[in-house]
Amino acid sequence: GFVKIDHHRKNRQGFPEIVYGEGKSAEQILTIVQSLRARNDSVLVTRISLEKAVIVQKNCPEFEYNEIARTLAWTEEKPKTNGYIAIVCAGTSDLSVAEEAAVTAETLGVNVRRIYDVGVAGLHRLLDNIEEIQNADVSVCVAGMEGALPSVLGGLITNPIIAVPTSVGYGANFNGLSALLSMLNSCASGVSVVNIDNGFGAAYNAVLIHRLAHKGEK
Amino acid sequence: GFVKIDHHRKNRQGFPEIVYGEGKSAEQILTIVQSLRARNDSVLVTRISLEKAVIVQKNCPEFEYNEIARTLAWTEEKPKTNGYIAIVCAGTSDLSVAEEAAVTAETLGVNVRRIYDVGVAGLHRLLDNIEEIQNADVSVCVAGMEGALPSVLGGLITNPIIAVPTSVGYGANFNGLSALLSMLNSCASGVSVVNIDNGFGAAYNAVLIHRLAHKGEK
Amino acid sequence: GFVKIDHHRKNRQGFPEIVYGEGKSAEQILTIVQSLRARNDSVLVTRISLEKAVIVQKNCPEFEYNEIARTLAWTEEKPKTNGYIAIVCAGTSDLSVAEEAAVTAETLGVNVRRIYDVGVAGLHRLLDNIEEIQNADVSVCVAGMEGALPSVLGGLITNPIIAVPTSVGYGANFNGLSALLSMLNSCASGVSVVNIDNGFGAAYNAVLIHRLAHKGEK
Amino acid sequence: GFVKIDHHRKNRQGFPEIVYGEGKSAEQILTIVQSLRARNDSVLVTRISLEKAVIVQKNCPEFEYNEIARTLAWTEEKPKTNGYIAIVCAGTSDLSVAEEAAVTAETLGVNVRRIYDVGVAGLHRLLDNIEEIQNADVSVCVAGMEGALPSVLGGLITNPIIAVPTSVGYGANFNGLSALLSMLNSCASGVSVVNIDNGFGAAYNAVLIHRLAHKGEK
Amino acid sequence: GFVKIDHHRKNRQGFPEIVYGEGKSAEQILTIVQSLRARNDSVLVTRISLEKAVIVQKNCPEFEYNEIARTLAWTEEKPKTNGYIAIVCAGTSDLSVAEEAAVTAETLGVNVRRIYDVGVAGLHRLLDNIEEIQNADVSVCVAGMEGALPSVLGGLITNPIIAVPTSVGYGANFNGLSALLSMLNSCASGVSVVNIDNGFGAAYNAVLIHRLAHKGEK
Amino acid sequence: GFVKIDHHRKNRQGFPEIVYGEGKSAEQILTIVQSLRARNDSVLVTRISLEKAVIVQKNCPEFEYNEIARTLAWTEEKPKTNGYIAIVCAGTSDLSVAEEAAVTAETLGVNVRRIYDVGVAGLHRLLDNIEEIQNADVSVCVAGMEGALPSVLGGLITNPIIAVPTSVGYGANFNGLSALLSMLNSCASGVSVVNIDNGFGAAYNAVLIHRLAHKGEK
Amino acid sequence: GFVKIDHHRKNRQGFPEIVYGEGKSAEQILTIVQSLRARNDSVLVTRISLEKAVIVQKNCPEFEYNEIARTLAWTEEKPKTNGYIAIVCAGTSDLSVAEEAAVTAETLGVNVRRIYDVGVAGLHRLLDNIEEIQNADVSVCVAGMEGALPSVLGGLITNPIIAVPTSVGYGANFNGLSALLSMLNSCASGVSVVNIDNGFGAAYNAVLIHRLAHKGEK
Amino acid sequence: GFVKIDHHRKNRQGFPEIVYGEGKSAEQILTIVQSLRARNDSVLVTRISLEKAVIVQKNCPEFEYNEIARTLAWTEEKPKTNGYIAIVCAGTSDLSVAEEAAVTAETLGVNVRRIYDVGVAGLHRLLDNIEEIQNADVSVCVAGMEGALPSVLGGLITNPIIAVPTSVGYGANFNGLSALLSMLNSCASGVSVVNIDNGFGAAYNAVLIHRLAHKGEK
Ligand SMILES: Nc1ncnc2c1ncn2[C@@H]1O[C@H](COP(=O)(O)O)[C@@H](O)[C@H]1O
Ligand SMILES: Nc1ncnc2c1ncn2[C@@H]1O[C@H](COP(=O)(O)O)[C@@H](O)[C@H]1O
Ligand SMILES: Nc1ncnc2c1ncn2[C@@H]1O[C@H](COP(=O)(O)O)[C@@H](O)[C@H]1O
Ligand SMILES: Nc1ncnc2c1ncn2[C@@H]1O[C@H](COP(=O)(O)O)[C@@H](O)[C@H]1O
Ligand SMILES: [Mg+2]
Ligand SMILES: [Mg+2]
Ligand SMILES: [Mg+2]
Ligand SMILES: [Mg+2]
Ligand SMILES: [Mg+2]
Ligand SMILES: [Mg+2]
Ligand SMILES: [Mg+2]
Ligand SMILES: [Mg+2]
Repeated sequence: GFVKIDHHRKNRQGFPEIVYGEGKSAEQILTIVQSLRARNDSVLVTRISLEKAVIVQKNCPEFEYNEIARTLAWTEEKPKTNGYIAIVCAGTSDLSVAEEAAVTAETLGVNVRRIYDVGVAGLHRLLDNIEEIQNADVSVCVAGMEGALPSVLGGLITNPIIAVPTSVGYGANFNGLSALLSMLNSCASGVSVVNIDNGFGAAYNAVLIHRLAHKGEK
Repeated sequence: GFVKIDHHRKNRQGFPEIVYGEGKSAEQILTIVQSLRARNDSVLVTRISLEKAVIVQKNCPEFEYNEIARTLAWTEEKPKTNGYIAIVCAGTSDLSVAEEAAVTAETLGVNVRRIYDVGVAGLHRLLDNIEEIQNADVSVCVAGMEGALPSVLGGLITNPIIAVPTSVGYGANFNGLSALLSMLNSCASGVSVVNIDNGFGAAYNAVLIHRLAHKGEK
Repeated sequence: GFVKIDHHRKNRQGFPEIVYGEGKSAEQILTIVQSLRARNDSVLVTRISLEKAVIVQKNCPEFEYNEIARTLAWTEEKPKTNGYIAIVCAGTSDLSVAEEAAVTAETLGVNVRRIYDVGVAGLHRLLDNIEEIQNADVSVCVAGMEGALPSVLGGLITNPIIAVPTSVGYGANFNGLSALLSMLNSCASGVSVVNIDNGFGAAYNAVLIHRLAHKGEK
Repeated sequence: GFVKIDHHRKNRQGFPEIVYGEGKSAEQILTIVQSLRARNDSVLVTRISLEKAVIVQKNCPEFEYNEIARTLAWTEEKPKTNGYIAIVCAGTSDLSVAEEAAVTAETLGVNVRRIYDVGVAGLHRLLDNIEEIQNADVSVCVAGMEGALPSVLGGLITNPIIAVPTSVGYGANFNGLSALLSMLNSCASGVSVVNIDNGFGAAYNAVLIHRLAHKGEK
Repeated sequence: GFVKIDHHRKNRQGFPEIVYGEGKSAEQILTIVQSLRARNDSVLVTRISLEKAVIVQKNCPEFEYNEIARTLAWTEEKPKTNGYIAIVCAGTSDLSVAEEAAVTAETLGVNVRRIYDVGVAGLHRLLDNIEEIQNADVSVCVAGMEGALPSVLGGLITNPIIAVPTSVGYGANFNGLSALLSMLNSCASGVSVVNIDNGFGAAYNAVLIHRLAHKGEK
Repeated sequence: GFVKIDHHRKNRQGFPEIVYGEGKSAEQILTIVQSLRARNDSVLVTRISLEKAVIVQKNCPEFEYNEIARTLAWTEEKPKTNGYIAIVCAGTSDLSVAEEAAVTAETLGVNVRRIYDVGVAGLHRLLDNIEEIQNADVSVCVAGMEGALPSVLGGLITNPIIAVPTSVGYGANFNGLSALLSMLNSCASGVSVVNIDNGFGAAYNAVLIHRLAHKGEK
Repeated sequence: GFVKIDHHRKNRQGFPEIVYGEGKSAEQILTIVQSLRARNDSVLVTRISLEKAVIVQKNCPEFEYNEIARTLAWTEEKPKTNGYIAIVCAGTSDLSVAEEAAVTAETLGVNVRRIYDVGVAGLHRLLDNIEEIQNADVSVCVAGMEGALPSVLGGLITNPIIAVPTSVGYGANFNGLSALLSMLNSCASGVSVVNIDNGFGAAYNAVLIHRLAHKGEK
Repeated sequence: GFVKIDHHRKNRQGFPEIVYGEGKSAEQILTIVQSLRARNDSVLVTRISLEKAVIVQKNCPEFEYNEIARTLAWTEEKPKTNGYIAIVCAGTSDLSVAEEAAVTAETLGVNVRRIYDVGVAGLHRLLDNIEEIQNADVSVCVAGMEGALPSVLGGLITNPIIAVPTSVGYGANFNGLSALLSMLNSCASGVSVVNIDNGFGAAYNAVLIHRLAHKGEK
């Protein structure tokens, strides 16, 4: 009764509705994913705890849980192009957001390459990997603390960057505000921003851009 | 002495350096644009007042000043594709930001379509124009006050949206904070955000995406 | 000793004092509700946990606990009119606030209709239900994240809307600030706002308006 | 070209579109009001400076300018009921917001009573006028600084209150934030809130409620 | 080693150092209070949990713990005047802050009168007790949510008021910010403010004022 | 019509109403002060510009304008005690707030001593004057930037301190927020706080305390 | 795979990479420290809980855990100079930040002197220790609440001060914001600031300065 | 009378008092600088407008005004070492802050090298100049917008960096807040921060460090 699943979303937008797990009970999630699964759509639940995932998996054993990303997913989608999205992150503490992005892109049928722990305080690590990032259609760039990575990257590559501030840090970080403001004020062009810790949203945007970049091929 | 123009940017990124006019004197701007002009690059100065523009135009009469956008531009670039960027805005007060975006895209050689004054409080105006927006490769969506337009638009179209919050409003709008937060929290997927009033940045992103969408054609 | 129950409130304002359960012990709540119950008034306790409710119910088994709304209530009040309040909410995560509103209105003797999960990112869901909302005397409109629903609704109906921002979201949502600012800056007319998560307050306002709308009938 | 006037709004919502004058040129305003005037609708422009008003009045001499409210209006609407809206304000510095509310209600065809300078620091002034406020269908309650007036009033009357925080004050007032937060946190029931300085919005809400309260009469 | 107790404070300021218990271990607190106790000074520890208090009491059984105030105290001080401080609070949820103030004043040797649960939404409760407040040398006025009580009280009495905002509330209360800003912006004169939830500080100020008011008597 | 002067305030509170000049026209101020002057009360207008003061003085040549304090005052009140208020300020930039405090106290009939430019970065300047401050009944302590002066002073004297943060500073000072927060968090006891730049309010509080300290004498 | 340890940092910057323990698992930390330990570098892990430390110590029993500082360290570095860093802190509640600074400096091979609990509300405690602070090459100055200590210290000594705001406090302290803003606005010269609670960062800066001060000696 | 110049500061701290010109009249500044000049100290006035400077120069023609830095200075101090401070800035809009720093250091007798317009979006510009920065004893690093420069620089050099956020930017820059938070959260070690736009303070710190680095030489 209380849930209205948006089943025409796949027609309207090309991808089925993704489920935001936070604040939903395992039972509610199960009802929703079964309804989606019945139509053979790919299914992705984000922000779901291990406890809830285990309950859902009892009924849907084919679903895969990713502990770092906190996602539960099922897909038969295979990447249709050789193009890829680069997922770049600054530090090991940003991993869970970066992985949420990676799982999202993969579930939606796009290849990703992970370039992790390349924050600006050790610039050589970024420069060593710049070619792989440059060759991506689009990059998702994840950073907490001062969030400087997208600005530096933006000056080095030519394709669009989706920047994701993370809540990693303390004190004057104010739960990610610091990184968010940095990214919004980036002096590099070609950088747009999504919500703090929103790995899912960044990847979804990147997938849309990737689809455009390869629309001639399909 | 004090300025280091980044002349390899065109090679590195595909577009020459765009000049941010705010806080620069007419003389400084003139020096910079002449240096760029000498290489026959397109030139775009944003956030430049009429007074300064007139001084620059004395030496560079071929430059065009747009009073609403507050831009000064020169280009011989012709659009190379039939694709276009949709510039959508909510109210007449958002015009100057929307026009900054439009001029930027045009100067960088991409067609734009303007769909203005289609805010969510009179939904039929948006629905009447939805097909033209849907057919764009990418949209720039400009809104002040509560900044709800990208959320509604995001549910109706399938291509990426670059959302631009504007500082239009008063009181609890806090100079655009209200629209900025709305856009960052959009429950629609496919929306990424740039800085408050940053029409330039949104268009630059859109141009990068447009280029990807047509790379097969060139 | 420490509590001064406002027993003339019913005369002065037409409704007995509603008890805010947060930060009160089960014992304090019991004392208060027994004192109210002794006068045969309707009783409503908001923000009360299951644990505390169970203790109160031991002495007052006629009280009903609503787990989603976190309310404890007793009433013999029957709706005196056919008019109703529409309780509209954007997503399933806003349910607990919407239900607090619904229970409040019902306890105060007014019919409600629930129109849930009709957020702006899937506009058709709202449009499908617009007639039922339009026919209400007044609507309570609950939304978190970017809080765009009241703006869209405000452009579609003619009766007043009481908007309730919720703390649903994360990151730049800042515990409901984002939705609150959106609603305060709504470009639609006819929208007024109550505190974040204040389902009770919204319903109370709606009940006052409903009473005015039907005062001729009584 | 750039303006899309929402002419069906009168049918859809019962009142024609009200024009927000801030950031529009005198010429833009003139075009809009002439278009509205041509259909014999009432016309109301808010936030319009004397300079702009004089230019519009040259073409539309029947329009009345209110210097305190900064409104320009024309109407032939006569109040159809004896009911009225009480406009209550705390201090003489809140006058311009209170008057914006008063003019809005009058232009939309509803009687108002002005109860001004009755702030809580001199309580007797409010108590002396409480009966007149109590007899209104609905009150608009305007206050700056600590914004305590709606809380006190809310405990004394039974009809709904639309609270308007003003930006009157200095220092930790933060341009009206202090009054806004007070009103949102009011411990009195029956208070809802509009944006800082939004006299127009408050009156519009009050007019909708007044219409409901008298719908039997018409 | 790590603590430097300020033993001359009693000479310099007339009262011994009060111990802030938050973030100190039971052992640290015990060491400090024994050192103070050895000089026969009154001792007051604020913000101390029941668990820690019990440990301290094992060694100092003469100490009294107040669960609502979360204070641990020992004094032989007897009030030397008939004057008193009025501790006024708005709601039952403000009790713990009000009691911290009361215990502080009493430990420092001053009489208090408690006037609780007299918030502005039920004005008659305040007016019924106004004479007792008026006759105090000075009042401590505790309120959360919109924090309007000191403004109303300030217009009714002639002696100074120390206002204490509390963190009671939710949503746009922002942990007491709302009440704090209200009190700082009070349009009543004679109101000064201490930190959110700082019952101790308010009482300490009130004791200093009380001492001045009775200095002739001693 | 629009102003309700609170003429019984003198009976109720012992002092006539003080006029807040900001946002009032010279004409409005004139009307108010003449009405007060007619009863032979002392008159004080704060926050009044030289231009407005000159207009008022044309009709009331006995009024004195203080350019630094921006006050206009008339009084025949003579100090009735030898006690005094110490007005202490940190830097020369805080002078206008300190002088507003001084004029207020003097107009209300209390002696003041000015101890200016004794900020904590040159501690010897404060220590050199500590005896004069210690001997005051109460101090008003004015400081901008980091607002540390009341904390240091509070550790050195035994009488109450009314702290006034000023908006002097730049950058992370955020218009006085920095000094305000410092003063609210002072680790010294005996410090209470008024609004940013509110020299008037601090002095009014100090006058109330001074009156208590000398009530035996009268 | 996910971690890229910056092993040339010691060459590039003179000190090996310090490990930020927050948000890393015991296993991740163990891997990192073993890799560092293998090169015989000093190792410092900050923000590590006792539980995690114990796990690491099982494999690396030579590591020392400091419970107050929450650091795990191993070093054979001996101080090469007689110079020292003064670690000054305001209250006992600031100890954990002060100790993080002390351990950092010691692990990096520099002597420290601890001058604790010398907050400005009891000035004599600071003045009694001023010579020892003055003789340090550089001071780390730790304070919460109003953060006034660096301003007072800055006026008394001639060497640079690294100020560390702590999150100690409550209410309008806003988790250290109050102390942070104070320190940034210090009217004393020679004070620079690091993040809230960042004892490590302050000490690292101090060590760099100490190295410069003694570079001639080595 | 109102000014207490701190003439022993030179003895106590090694440098005479620097005058903060903002909010002081030309006459006040003149009095202060003549008093300092009489003792043959170097004199530096910061934040002084051209208009005021011209008035002061009439009496003190030997003073030099720097229009970009907005400083007025006189010194006979000659650099006593070959060491220098690197003043690094990100963009041409940061020039005035960078120059305030440069003039301060030079007036206090230390050499500076200016490395301007080397922001992170064009990294090669920074890398081209890194050796000159590395060879400085200490760097002042000035940046607005996202303030990423100190983080990148901090990873490349070994000496301390004093970071200065500037208020250059718009929108979500919030007058320098964005750059300030970035710098406080820098993931590079060796970075400490001063107030937004505080070029003076950064240089003063750098001068103290430079003095330590060369104390053996003198
Ligand atoms: N959920 C709620 N949110 C805000 N106010 C409430 C809520 N529930 C009850 N109240 C109000 O809180 C007041 C009672 O507060 P108290 O005296 O603390 O029980 C009543 O006047 C109610 O109108
Ligand atoms: N609840 C409280 N809030 C604020 N300050 C307090 C409180 N309790 C004690 N204090 C002050 O805290 C200081 C003691 O701090 P400490 O040295 O950390 O024990 C004393 O000077 C008291 O005046
Ligand atoms: N500078 C000031 N700051 C704050 N309040 C003031 C100031 N001057 C006067 N007031 C208060 O403002 C009230 C008068 O407000 P109004 O009715 O607008 O003149 C009086 O009650 C005064 O106590
Ligand atoms: N631009 C500046 N920013 C911050 N502080 C400054 C500046 N210029 C001078 N100062 C400091 O301000 C103090 C002088 O303040 P004042 O007494 O108001 O002239 C001196 O101690 C200087 O160290
Ligand atoms: Mg790393
Ligand atoms: Mg429009
Ligand atoms: Mg849904
Ligand atoms: Mg008044
Ligand atoms: Mg109550
Ligand atoms: Mg000075
Ligand atoms: Mg202590
Ligand atoms: Mg540049």
